Amino acid sequence: MITRIDHIGIACRDLDASIEFYRRAHGFEVVHSEVNEEQGVREAMLRINGTDDGAASYLQLLEPIRDDCAIAKYLEKHGEGVHHIAFGTADVVAATEAATSTGIRALYPAPRRGTSNSSINFLHPKDCHGVLTELVQAADPADAHHS
Amino acid sequence: MITRIDHIGIACRDLDASIEFYRRAHGFEVVHSEVNEEQGVREAMLRINGTDDGAASYLQLLEPIRDDCAIAKYLEKHGEGVHHIAFGTADVVAATEAATSTGIRALYPAPRRGTSNSSINFLHPKDCHGVLTELVQAADPADAHHS
Repeated sequence: MITRIDHIGIACRDLDASIEFYRRAHGFEVVHSEVNEEQGVREAMLRINGTDDGAASYLQLLEPIRDDCAIAKYLEKHGEGVHHIAFGTADVVAATEAATSTGIRALYPAPRRGTSNSSINFLHPKDCHGVLTELVQAADPADAHHS
Repeated sequence: MITRIDHIGIACRDLDASIEFYRRAHGFEVVHSEVNEEQGVREAMLRINGTDDGAASYLQLLEPIRDDCAIAKYLEKHGEGVHHIAFGTADVVAATEAATSTGIRALYPAPRRGTSNSSINFLHPKDCHGVLTELVQAADPADAHHS
């Protein structure tokens, strides 16, 4: 069961420039940043609001750290912009199965590591009316993205 | 001041098919639908979660009702997918001015009517690292999108 918009993932060419953009334009602040070697990204989470499932909604700014990662390919094809949307759930396996049982393809056979040791999977954008959709289970819901 | 992710706006070719997709894949339900003649769209709001400013976050599904509207042009160029993101604020004029004071262009000189009689403006995607950004002030925050 999905209980929140966890984040909106935005592909950017220069993470520091995008962080500064959101700070100046809207006052958003970075609450977490990390490098995810497997996903090939350097990323920052900007917290926007708390959600009624006890977690929060974020912007996730993503800069590629190598040319063969998904974000680098996206930037080459589309330029900067919204790369994916992510829904939060207490059980990423169940939420993935609920979707795949309707014929949607998941990108991974089992969840992989996402931001702040969350467990994530993606649903194929061609099966989701053009929207790359991530499903996220926080490592510890009370501490999501704040470790 | 921005207090929430209000919605993610998704361009679709067939509103009813996209509504059915989100119901089957994730269990999301329509809480409001309308036709906005000025924007040239038929739309549905799917409520995802409550937010700690007393409002909520939604998916907004948008189908064009004429060929010259922004959503029709987006579909022609990009196909279905995320069209814009929208931040909620108690004062759309102030939030717009906070952004334009940093050099970002607003699309309208004054707010226009959005979903459920909200007041909205957009920030130019070329000034926002590729992200078409909407700012939304609910007509009545306690009743946003539920009228």
